Amino acid sequence: MKIAYVGAAPKSTEEVERRRSLLQEWSAPGTTIQMAYAKDGPASIESMYEEYLAISGYAKGMVRLEYEGFDAAIVGCAGDPGIDAYRELCTNMLVVGPGMSSFHAAAVLGRKFTLLTVADSMIASSYELIQKSGLASMVTSVRAVNIPVLELAANREETLEKLVRIGREAIEKDRADVLVLGCMSMAFLQVAEDMQKLLEIPVINPAKAALKLAESLASCGLKQSKAAFTVPPKLPSEQANTIEELLIKRENKSTLGESYYDNYL
Amino acid sequence: MKIAYVGAAPKSTEEVERRRSLLQEWSAPGTTIQMAYAKDGPASIESMYEEYLAISGYAKGMVRLEYEGFDAAIVGCAGDPGIDAYRELCTNMLVVGPGMSSFHAAAVLGRKFTLLTVADSMIASSYELIQKSGLASMVTSVRAVNIPVLELAANREETLEKLVRIGREAIEKDRADVLVLGCMSMAFLQVAEDMQKLLEIPVINPAKAALKLAESLASCGLKQSKAAFTVPPKLPSEQANTIEELLIKRENKSTLGESYYDNYL
Amino acid sequence: MKIAYVGAAPKSTEEVERRRSLLQEWSAPGTTIQMAYAKDGPASIESMYEEYLAISGYAKGMVRLEYEGFDAAIVGCAGDPGIDAYRELCTNMLVVGPGMSSFHAAAVLGRKFTLLTVADSMIASSYELIQKSGLASMVTSVRAVNIPVLELAANREETLEKLVRIGREAIEKDRADVLVLGCMSMAFLQVAEDMQKLLEIPVINPAKAALKLAESLASCGLKQSKAAFTVPPKLPSEQANTIEELLIKRENKSTLGESYYDNYL
Amino acid sequence: MKIAYVGAAPKSTEEVERRRSLLQEWSAPGTTIQMAYAKDGPASIESMYEEYLAISGYAKGMVRLEYEGFDAAIVGCAGDPGIDAYRELCTNMLVVGPGMSSFHAAAVLGRKFTLLTVADSMIASSYELIQKSGLASMVTSVRAVNIPVLELAANREETLEKLVRIGREAIEKDRADVLVLGCMSMAFLQVAEDMQKLLEIPVINPAKAALKLAESLASCGLKQSKAAFTVPPKLPSEQANTIEELLIKRENKSTLGESYYDNYL
Amino acid sequence: MKIAYVGAAPKSTEEVERRRSLLQEWSAPGTTIQMAYAKDGPASIESMYEEYLAISGYAKGMVRLEYEGFDAAIVGCAGDPGIDAYRELCTNMLVVGPGMSSFHAAAVLGRKFTLLTVADSMIASSYELIQKSGLASMVTSVRAVNIPVLELAANREETLEKLVRIGREAIEKDRADVLVLGCMSMAFLQVAEDMQKLLEIPVINPAKAALKLAESLASCGLKQSKAAFTVPPKLPSEQANTIEELLIKRENKSTLGESYYDNYL
Amino acid sequence: MKIAYVGAAPKSTEEVERRRSLLQEWSAPGTTIQMAYAKDGPASIESMYEEYLAISGYAKGMVRLEYEGFDAAIVGCAGDPGIDAYRELCTNMLVVGPGMSSFHAAAVLGRKFTLLTVADSMIASSYELIQKSGLASMVTSVRAVNIPVLELAANREETLEKLVRIGREAIEKDRADVLVLGCMSMAFLQVAEDMQKLLEIPVINPAKAALKLAESLASCGLKQSKAAFTVPPKLPSEQANTIEELLIKRENKSTLGESYYDNYL
Repeated sequence: MKIAYVGAAPKSTEEVERRRSLLQEWSAPGTTIQMAYAKDGPASIESMYEEYLAISGYAKGMVRLEYEGFDAAIVGCAGDPGIDAYRELCTNMLVVGPGMSSFHAAAVLGRKFTLLTVADSMIASSYELIQKSGLASMVTSVRAVNIPVLELAANREETLEKLVRIGREAIEKDRADVLVLGCMSMAFLQVAEDMQKLLEIPVINPAKAALKLAESLASCGLKQSKAAFTVPPKLPSEQANTIEELLIKRENKSTLGESYYDNYL
Repeated sequence: MKIAYVGAAPKSTEEVERRRSLLQEWSAPGTTIQMAYAKDGPASIESMYEEYLAISGYAKGMVRLEYEGFDAAIVGCAGDPGIDAYRELCTNMLVVGPGMSSFHAAAVLGRKFTLLTVADSMIASSYELIQKSGLASMVTSVRAVNIPVLELAANREETLEKLVRIGREAIEKDRADVLVLGCMSMAFLQVAEDMQKLLEIPVINPAKAALKLAESLASCGLKQSKAAFTVPPKLPSEQANTIEELLIKRENKSTLGESYYDNYL
Repeated sequence: MKIAYVGAAPKSTEEVERRRSLLQEWSAPGTTIQMAYAKDGPASIESMYEEYLAISGYAKGMVRLEYEGFDAAIVGCAGDPGIDAYRELCTNMLVVGPGMSSFHAAAVLGRKFTLLTVADSMIASSYELIQKSGLASMVTSVRAVNIPVLELAANREETLEKLVRIGREAIEKDRADVLVLGCMSMAFLQVAEDMQKLLEIPVINPAKAALKLAESLASCGLKQSKAAFTVPPKLPSEQANTIEELLIKRENKSTLGESYYDNYL
Repeated sequence: MKIAYVGAAPKSTEEVERRRSLLQEWSAPGTTIQMAYAKDGPASIESMYEEYLAISGYAKGMVRLEYEGFDAAIVGCAGDPGIDAYRELCTNMLVVGPGMSSFHAAAVLGRKFTLLTVADSMIASSYELIQKSGLASMVTSVRAVNIPVLELAANREETLEKLVRIGREAIEKDRADVLVLGCMSMAFLQVAEDMQKLLEIPVINPAKAALKLAESLASCGLKQSKAAFTVPPKLPSEQANTIEELLIKRENKSTLGESYYDNYL
Repeated sequence: MKIAYVGAAPKSTEEVERRRSLLQEWSAPGTTIQMAYAKDGPASIESMYEEYLAISGYAKGMVRLEYEGFDAAIVGCAGDPGIDAYRELCTNMLVVGPGMSSFHAAAVLGRKFTLLTVADSMIASSYELIQKSGLASMVTSVRAVNIPVLELAANREETLEKLVRIGREAIEKDRADVLVLGCMSMAFLQVAEDMQKLLEIPVINPAKAALKLAESLASCGLKQSKAAFTVPPKLPSEQANTIEELLIKRENKSTLGESYYDNYL
Repeated sequence: MKIAYVGAAPKSTEEVERRRSLLQEWSAPGTTIQMAYAKDGPASIESMYEEYLAISGYAKGMVRLEYEGFDAAIVGCAGDPGIDAYRELCTNMLVVGPGMSSFHAAAVLGRKFTLLTVADSMIASSYELIQKSGLASMVTSVRAVNIPVLELAANREETLEKLVRIGREAIEKDRADVLVLGCMSMAFLQVAEDMQKLLEIPVINPAKAALKLAESLASCGLKQSKAAFTVPPKLPSEQANTIEELLIKRENKSTLGESYYDNYL
């Protein structure tokens, strides 16, 4: 089975290789992991705007990966940005996101989970993501660690300590019985395992959750339902032959008018 | 009061002017309407992928319009694509969407509304949008007219006839007591008014609903809550000085590694 | 446009004029405000019983105002008492309530609002009112200031201080990102504007919210759906010719029996 | 135990006595039934406006009955109009409504119930009443018989036949497994018992359900929670000594101003 | 009317007689109470496993009691273990549970109730039970006293004191306006009555609530809907003649294979 | 990895071996499947009573399998009977059910799923099971094939044809975009794969779904949360040393009284 992990923005060769080898190590016998990072994208994702910034690169990657015959692809961000779009675009390749994968794993293992997200700015949209998964009744709280994504890995011990402290609050105050890490940098820091030992409840690593869900569904021959995620109608009707052609540009169409904002929009 | 209507993609000068003059006609004394169309974007929006395609142009426009001192801006698509992002980015300019504006107007006027969307491919995501507005309990159905957006205006009579027929089904089978048009091309076709006369229940024109909501809230000095829609943290912390700097590009960073997918992503 | 503000009980000429001139000041060019106060009604509304006491006067006023050709009428109490009845009785005049107007404005501006009501005795029924608006998922708390309505205006500074303190608790403990004032005496005290400056999140003034909603919908030719709010069947079937005739009285009907409670009921 | 049945409007001596003797027959040994009909009120209740019209008479009756030492009182309308108000006003006398009593009985006996209401005009408000009882998840449909209340009893056979037909539709199309009659005239027509035999699922008679709930709770020493239904604050604080004093009247207060609407409101 | 109280496991003659005489004392004139205790079952119920352990004994008892002509039977555990099964098996005898009876009584008397259960281990399943009753929106919290069931009665004063303390927390922190005792040993300790006096809100005794519900429904000729709780299909189709025959045993069927676990399962 | 499949009742050696080899074939490299069938249990499960009948055998098996060092066990019934109990009893062995596994897989792949259950008698309890999984908002319908479980395999073609026909109805009338088979006999008949080809939407085989979920979670070191599924308190407190000792029997306790029902309960 060939599974791709698609990153939102370029990363150093070392870090990409480190993440690949972790995914490879976690995968089942017979699975090959391929890393595919977009050429440009947000440095990290701490707002809805940055989520949307990632979608263009992801979409191009997903379409290419499907064409290359991959069995499944993982959106490389715990907010699953734009996942419904890739599911519309791909018919033969399964697309999964770490967010949804983790929420469903948490729902299976306990009764009330807490999501630990990176920043206060992501709390409200995290609730929306959980609701979109259909699991609003299973979440007891979303709490933020408030360490910038790009600094999470700089001091693993400090990050772990803070995660354990906030996780304990979730257990005691919100009666959480499962924790979910809501960030891929946390995932590849491999802190879930340490937290689980210290806190004695399941802690979901979103990278592992997404990988395992991809392997499971793909091995059963299951892919997203095309009745739920229809191909954009202009593609089958041949108004557009590629996803690039879904975009129109003013310079190409001499009949298009100018407007006051022509200069900068 | 200065209100901008932001379009997702370039349109002919005539059509832009036609829409502007309708908005101007509908607006309250003292309101000036400005049209701002993105230089590139989706020809029309009939899938989630096309919704996401529109966001980049919208975001640049919104930031610019806020800088120019506009009081409010209207997202020019009934699916409100990316609206939470523009609300994060803008602090002094109110941002509203035709979808949310229409759903709340419908909820105020009746007990159960039906949304008439353009295509079957948009039904599922329309329910998600209504749920995101907090109004899931007020919708009784989403029904599609299945006329491509770009053909809606070609034959106004046929479009109206089909909308009336489907609206009547919604009233009889789903007990709808208010209808919402879910497409800006329908809005500027001015069919809501005819439908309302024929069907004898309120029919919401999303362009008017958004304009009136923008005028109302702005005249009360109300804007989106920055506690709900936080500015992306990298901007106040000066890791990025503009929204363009939230994007990193491989060519600019010689230390970034290459990956297998470098060629096309 | 002619808009009426209907008060539940008589008030001093000065106070009525003060409120009228505020509403007139807040209204759009072309709007005329008329005050209509019932001859008898509850001194203030701090219980469900007092809400119901107000309905008889409101209903008579609404029917008269519609007959006089008003475009819209505002129920002059933040609990919207009896609003579904006036919507049944009126076909050509839009009827809005400050409660529903405020909740929908709050839902549009943020993700979780707190309603600040007058007394603990109104907390439970306030949740029911929000649920009736379809917005139960958008409210994070209802908190009471516990200053009797009739004393709110006596010491504006103290009232403001208390509202700010409780508003801050709502923000910190309940994660509210919008506040709604749940009392017309608060509304006409014009504290929302001061609170908004101090607390830095939107604070909804229910009088302004209702006025703006009335202007917005009426200017679009929208009124409550008669499919949702049916005229009482005895009126179209001519069993009753006026709303007064919907009431039967023992003295008029010699065939009606007496019962044990004849003396006092 | 002394239980009162409070009627919204005067009725003929014969009909009052007929209803009393049915209630007495259905009651447990030791229960005495007293009928108390308001001197004026709506002839029948087929709209929210008529529900509100009934409240004034009910409230006076309830206060008097509590003063006379009754153990419990039943609101004599299946829409439970104004019940939260009487629960606020009464501390020592239990107040129950036939609507809530029937919905809870239905929820206990099956999984999905259908409410059979009198007219299409009551369907929407019936859903609201069920939701207010906390039982929205247990109702599968509300269907109307569309026979005017005052004609229901005129032709018992026709009424029964129509109820059976609509009940069967509810079973087959909505998968109802319990039926609730939503009208006191149906209740005292004693059709529930016949319907139950013909349809082979439980059919709730709201008069019996309310009587039995009143007897049950009262015999356990249970009354409505005063923490949920607070006495209107002006009564304990002695701003008002009786419920009549909660109403102010213009003629009594020479300082109250006049307004444009003085003539009719 | 003949009502049986079915116990999950054998108890001392004295305790059974003490409970019977309390139930008899609480019952209406004309009701006869019969105690029926299973020969084996869990000593007390503090986990889901122990709930399930009780079902086999209960089911046999229920079938026998129906055969003997009882009008109604009460499941003798506040978790209502297996009640849907007995409702499937019994057609002519009403079956009620103390849990559902108490939740509906609480919902009728207030707006938000707290359930006081025995142990932390029962909190999560208690929420599920309330949700199954359709009353999830009426519960504000489940709190545990954490006194083992078998010790509750040993020191009545200490138990009462703890219940009052936790009840007060529920009132103050969770805004509960009704309390429900979630254990039959608490019920027969008759502490609800003392708590109600001290805390001044209704406190539901689950034994009384179940008894009164059984009397009420049975006196109206109401039983569980067989459309909701179908008889196991093998009984009417005569694949099985008794509930015992629904169980197959390996020793009886020589054609059944052996498996690795034959030794202990 | 060692995974056990636990059957509710004895089956023929051939059928057990056939099922084992299918599970082994579907499993990942490195997984060993062990079949463990209870010595007595229900022949098939078509009612809640039969679900409960299966629990005793399952529980004994689960405890034994944990003791033997299995990594995970699958409850061999699509209704997941008693699963919360086994999760309480087992600390080191993961326990999963085919029902929950399938519902979560369906929720991940589409937006609205239909469950195809065996008999009308299971429809209502199936909705409850889905609600317990937290996925009530993702199910659009439960439909029954009404072929007795024991006859499903007798005529595979007829069964498949009926499933396809009912599946098509679910797609057309209920807008299902994923189907779930709700019976293990259907699962091992391998019809999901054929249905998926014919109906062109994902069809979940519950046996595969449970196996893959077990492999996934176990390979991540994840097990049910003991904070959510507490060990029955009598075990850690040593009031009972084995699950058998949680049961008390009259014959063992000479101090236990007799009751009227001693003869048969």
